[in-house]
Amino acid sequence: MKNTFGNSVAITLFGESHGEYIGAVIDGMAPGIKIDRGYIEHMLTLRRPDGKISTPRKEKDEYRIVSGVIEDTTTGTPITTLIPNEDVKSGDYADMKTVARPSHADYTAECKYHGYQDSRGGGHFSGRITAALVAAGAICKFALEQKGIYIGTHVRRCAGISDREFDNLAADINALNSKTFAVLDNASGEKMREAILEAAADGDSVGGVLETAVIGMPEGVGEPWFDTVEGSLSHMLFSVPAVKGIEFGAGFALSDMRGSTANDPFLMQGDRVVTATNNNGGINGGITNGMPIIFRTVVKPTPTIFRQQKSVDFRTMTDSVLQATGRHDPAIVHRARVVQDAATAIALCDALAMRFGTDWLK
Amino acid sequence: MKNTFGNSVAITLFGESHGEYIGAVIDGMAPGIKIDRGYIEHMLTLRRPDGKISTPRKEKDEYRIVSGVIEDTTTGTPITTLIPNEDVKSGDYADMKTVARPSHADYTAECKYHGYQDSRGGGHFSGRITAALVAAGAICKFALEQKGIYIGTHVRRCAGISDREFDNLAADINALNSKTFAVLDNASGEKMREAILEAAADGDSVGGVLETAVIGMPEGVGEPWFDTVEGSLSHMLFSVPAVKGIEFGAGFALSDMRGSTANDPFLMQGDRVVTATNNNGGINGGITNGMPIIFRTVVKPTPTIFRQQKSVDFRTMTDSVLQATGRHDPAIVHRARVVQDAATAIALCDALAMRFGTDWLK
Amino acid sequence: MKNTFGNSVAITLFGESHGEYIGAVIDGMAPGIKIDRGYIEHMLTLRRPDGKISTPRKEKDEYRIVSGVIEDTTTGTPITTLIPNEDVKSGDYADMKTVARPSHADYTAECKYHGYQDSRGGGHFSGRITAALVAAGAICKFALEQKGIYIGTHVRRCAGISDREFDNLAADINALNSKTFAVLDNASGEKMREAILEAAADGDSVGGVLETAVIGMPEGVGEPWFDTVEGSLSHMLFSVPAVKGIEFGAGFALSDMRGSTANDPFLMQGDRVVTATNNNGGINGGITNGMPIIFRTVVKPTPTIFRQQKSVDFRTMTDSVLQATGRHDPAIVHRARVVQDAATAIALCDALAMRFGTDWLK
Amino acid sequence: MKNTFGNSVAITLFGESHGEYIGAVIDGMAPGIKIDRGYIEHMLTLRRPDGKISTPRKEKDEYRIVSGVIEDTTTGTPITTLIPNEDVKSGDYADMKTVARPSHADYTAECKYHGYQDSRGGGHFSGRITAALVAAGAICKFALEQKGIYIGTHVRRCAGISDREFDNLAADINALNSKTFAVLDNASGEKMREAILEAAADGDSVGGVLETAVIGMPEGVGEPWFDTVEGSLSHMLFSVPAVKGIEFGAGFALSDMRGSTANDPFLMQGDRVVTATNNNGGINGGITNGMPIIFRTVVKPTPTIFRQQKSVDFRTMTDSVLQATGRHDPAIVHRARVVQDAATAIALCDALAMRFGTDWLK
Repeated sequence: MKNTFGNSVAITLFGESHGEYIGAVIDGMAPGIKIDRGYIEHMLTLRRPDGKISTPRKEKDEYRIVSGVIEDTTTGTPITTLIPNEDVKSGDYADMKTVARPSHADYTAECKYHGYQDSRGGGHFSGRITAALVAAGAICKFALEQKGIYIGTHVRRCAGISDREFDNLAADINALNSKTFAVLDNASGEKMREAILEAAADGDSVGGVLETAVIGMPEGVGEPWFDTVEGSLSHMLFSVPAVKGIEFGAGFALSDMRGSTANDPFLMQGDRVVTATNNNGGINGGITNGMPIIFRTVVKPTPTIFRQQKSVDFRTMTDSVLQATGRHDPAIVHRARVVQDAATAIALCDALAMRFGTDWLK
Repeated sequence: MKNTFGNSVAITLFGESHGEYIGAVIDGMAPGIKIDRGYIEHMLTLRRPDGKISTPRKEKDEYRIVSGVIEDTTTGTPITTLIPNEDVKSGDYADMKTVARPSHADYTAECKYHGYQDSRGGGHFSGRITAALVAAGAICKFALEQKGIYIGTHVRRCAGISDREFDNLAADINALNSKTFAVLDNASGEKMREAILEAAADGDSVGGVLETAVIGMPEGVGEPWFDTVEGSLSHMLFSVPAVKGIEFGAGFALSDMRGSTANDPFLMQGDRVVTATNNNGGINGGITNGMPIIFRTVVKPTPTIFRQQKSVDFRTMTDSVLQATGRHDPAIVHRARVVQDAATAIALCDALAMRFGTDWLK
Repeated sequence: MKNTFGNSVAITLFGESHGEYIGAVIDGMAPGIKIDRGYIEHMLTLRRPDGKISTPRKEKDEYRIVSGVIEDTTTGTPITTLIPNEDVKSGDYADMKTVARPSHADYTAECKYHGYQDSRGGGHFSGRITAALVAAGAICKFALEQKGIYIGTHVRRCAGISDREFDNLAADINALNSKTFAVLDNASGEKMREAILEAAADGDSVGGVLETAVIGMPEGVGEPWFDTVEGSLSHMLFSVPAVKGIEFGAGFALSDMRGSTANDPFLMQGDRVVTATNNNGGINGGITNGMPIIFRTVVKPTPTIFRQQKSVDFRTMTDSVLQATGRHDPAIVHRARVVQDAATAIALCDALAMRFGTDWLK
Repeated sequence: MKNTFGNSVAITLFGESHGEYIGAVIDGMAPGIKIDRGYIEHMLTLRRPDGKISTPRKEKDEYRIVSGVIEDTTTGTPITTLIPNEDVKSGDYADMKTVARPSHADYTAECKYHGYQDSRGGGHFSGRITAALVAAGAICKFALEQKGIYIGTHVRRCAGISDREFDNLAADINALNSKTFAVLDNASGEKMREAILEAAADGDSVGGVLETAVIGMPEGVGEPWFDTVEGSLSHMLFSVPAVKGIEFGAGFALSDMRGSTANDPFLMQGDRVVTATNNNGGINGGITNGMPIIFRTVVKPTPTIFRQQKSVDFRTMTDSVLQATGRHDPAIVHRARVVQDAATAIALCDALAMRFGTDWLK
């Protein structure tokens, strides 16, 4: 289904970096869900470029909800958000049109769209489109919170610097959701910011790792094959631009563990079944076990850098050299974090609606 | 769609470990594709338990193709494979029924199926089901080879021991496909086998990392959002039991790189566009760029071990202790490798059919 | 998704008329549903050829359930039914292979499958495949009855003879489900049977109209656009071979009515909202209103007749003449009726599971 | 997928009668397709209320394409059309809010959306939404014409008056596409208009039958089960508001035919296989045979009439009486005709893209 994701709650994304609008349609959200405009704006603010460590492109993200909501309450029919593009300077990108930016989608877009693609500012591949994903996801994330399900993401690692691990999840998630630069340890965050600025000064960029925790998910959600919770979340999360890997629970570290260490023993906590450890990230056999869902994604360094790079002109099919100009982020991992929150919220709403029906929020 | 995956080429899996049959339906494969019975049997052999380092359960995997094929050629209509279950000893698992095996799906199955699940030998969650996935995937993999697309997977790491990296992909893939224990460096493989036996002697188990390479994929396949090649492959691959993470190209290592190192410069090689490095694993913006697709998955240690483990009885809701008996694998990573090949082949056939239509093989 | 239908409860069909097995996988049925073997066998019996007015092909339909059911109770994982093909006489169809049977799928199969299709007895297009649909649908239909939802179909018209209209729906449905030749008025049925025999004596065939009623459906099921109840049911029902039309409620007769007559006035019946008439067949705006769902399909005359017909040889691309031999039904409308019941049951289970979640039967 | 339809080419509809915008996203259209603005506007004009025989609501339908198109050429990424709502008089509908309009979706919306639905002017159920479907379908229809595939629909019957049958399809389709009131015989059309005015004068409404012809479709498109061409088209067409039935080829008339008459004999016409008659409407076994696709839908009389009707207040759950005021159409069949063209075009683009790949238009 390409630009649509989901079976019961589904999102359709549209728009280009330099088009008139970007937007999203969320279909299948239950009726009667409150829309908190401040909440959506706050999430959009967290995604927006942030002064020195981001592109100077100014985006007001004046989103509007043009269907599916009356008096800040969902009607149950498709919710459409529109965000107008402003502050567009097409000229900056003019000479990039046929020399492929390495590790960008310029060349693959040419292969797929035969030259008809909108190449201005990345077109439909632009990270800009994630603003629409965030607005849609904010509605889903707020709805989940009404059911006691909370999502938080921090920059677990950036430019070789690590944040502390999750500790008290409820408190940590709460703290993260108000932070512009989402780290649990502010000192680590300060070092990351310095490293980003250093890379920027070198005309270079850095990557990182995002770690997400979800608490409050009921057990018994997900499927044994194909529509596993890991499979559904990963399908969604590889749409967060620059994500090139995902791991659940202990993830790749499981490869060096033995079963006796890796296994999560069950135990009773009052009348609830819990696990003593959570190396499986809250998912067994593709299905939630009631423990927190924990996963990490890797965000590659922003591909656009201000250094000369070898490339090809894909129209003349000759070797060429690229010197980027314009506005770009030396890092996007700290901005991608709220996109990850949003994407996670949408995928979980779908999984819950499939499990409990379209009135699952009641 | 739960137990069905795919839009144009789709697979539906069915069966339980101790049921009469396991099987798969592959719908949408082009007509006129040759079926090589020896090829399928070879892949099933690679999945089968292997003497000392695997469960002693004997599986003959007498698969039959009962629809969609005439005179070893696909008709274009659904292909159904059936594999009868044999050598079934239900008794071994009898006392596991209500004490959840840690890191298995026993407890989550109870949450989802309310006690009606088939708990014998893992039921529908059993790794046994992957035999049907392998038979189906073998048909797809052989078809891809007719188009010059080759897939190979090796045990990149197991029990803390690493295999060498891919070097000459065509030669390496060719070599891997005839090996029972798929490593590129036999000496490393020997050490892995020793480590597996050592863990088995301790009543324990080990995990590992699988690395897959795909060569010959045409450029321009995949979608910018949601149905990215990474998203589709990961959705599929989290169905390989015990997989808890996936990374493409340089994967999580990208988090510590700078853009100037991580970016893959384009260059002309004759009349083809290639990249000098392949840190993006053959995919830019969700779409293939014609370079090899490279990814790694992590396979957690086999959860069933012969040590006493803390757990709960999920019927009485009390703490309990589990002592496993029966037949189990001290490692499955070396068997999962062919499941990964098969799963990859199915997902790529679907992506190719979506891109080029149902006659894409012609 | 081609040979798979459904979003939450999905059916995948496979097999060919002269292959080893035909079968179906039903995925997503709730756990804990009773399977009544006698019920399934009864429905298979109703579909089977019936002496003089049907093909003399003998089908024992020795169906087996090979996954998803333990102790005649669903586990919640995919249910697979297998029906072996017996009494197969391939020779009868040998000379039909390249001369297209008019109004059959021989020529379109050639166009789509390029000569690789299984042409023996209609292959995957054979009405024989509906035995698998019936076995799967019987499980769904029985499940619906546990929730008070009942489905019944009668031969509303055949060979120009009409059955009486539905009257007391509960009683009529109950009566129909035990009848081999499903009419409400036995005298009309007798005339239909005579007309069928008369056509058979002429080497000819007849068609008819099937009318289905569903009682007990809850209100509020279905979607306003695309996944309307009419849209979902019709998508499914055009898979009943020979169906060429469907109409809901008053159907095509609405074209000559005025709104003042066609509209169904609402009124209170105790504490329930009902409609005084049911010209909309229980569906308003694509969504059930709690009234009986009523629809009719037209089943074209069996295309295989024993008269010489003009046709073409699609291999030599020359005009030709066809003289059918072998075993064929002079009418299938009376057999298709139980296929329609089954198909309806599957589509409604899916709609209910989407609305109320995977535990909708509880 | 609810408000999304299609597998490769997909449409998502959004908006409400009295909301800010209605619109549609069309995903998966091939790149490089010309957009003819005049063509889209013409189709929107044909849908618009038409003087005396329609609602006096004025809709300018100032549609905008806000993504997926550059310089009037598709880019290959999602195309979004927006149509602002104007001339909105909410007050007219105020007292309809809790007394259900018979045969409208007011009551079923209440059942599904629990009172949160937008009830102004029918909300998301309003025929108004079809303007977005028409704009999207116009793009698809124009694209099909570039491949030699033409679609035309006429009012086959209205208020008991019949139009003449299709004769020369190419000429008839061409003539229809420029007519505001689409009949093949203008005299019949004049009588229909008079009958509509007569019903309007009585405060009543009328229905009709729409007949659609598609010429130029290649053979071999569609699937044998579930995704038959009939199944896909009908799934789509029941989204045209007020449609309650659909029949292909000879349709319900097949019930009274014998096989010897109903069968369509094949014959060679030059080097093409054609059929002498077309009682199957261009589809055999769910797959196109290269002959024109012919189908008819029934459009029920507009449910809103200016006569007092019995109904219930679904909030107080009491019997009530409804007296409609405001603006309404005494017939919509003549406006629905262009919606049917549009819906057909979208469904066929999807079927063609599934068969021939995303570059099917080249």
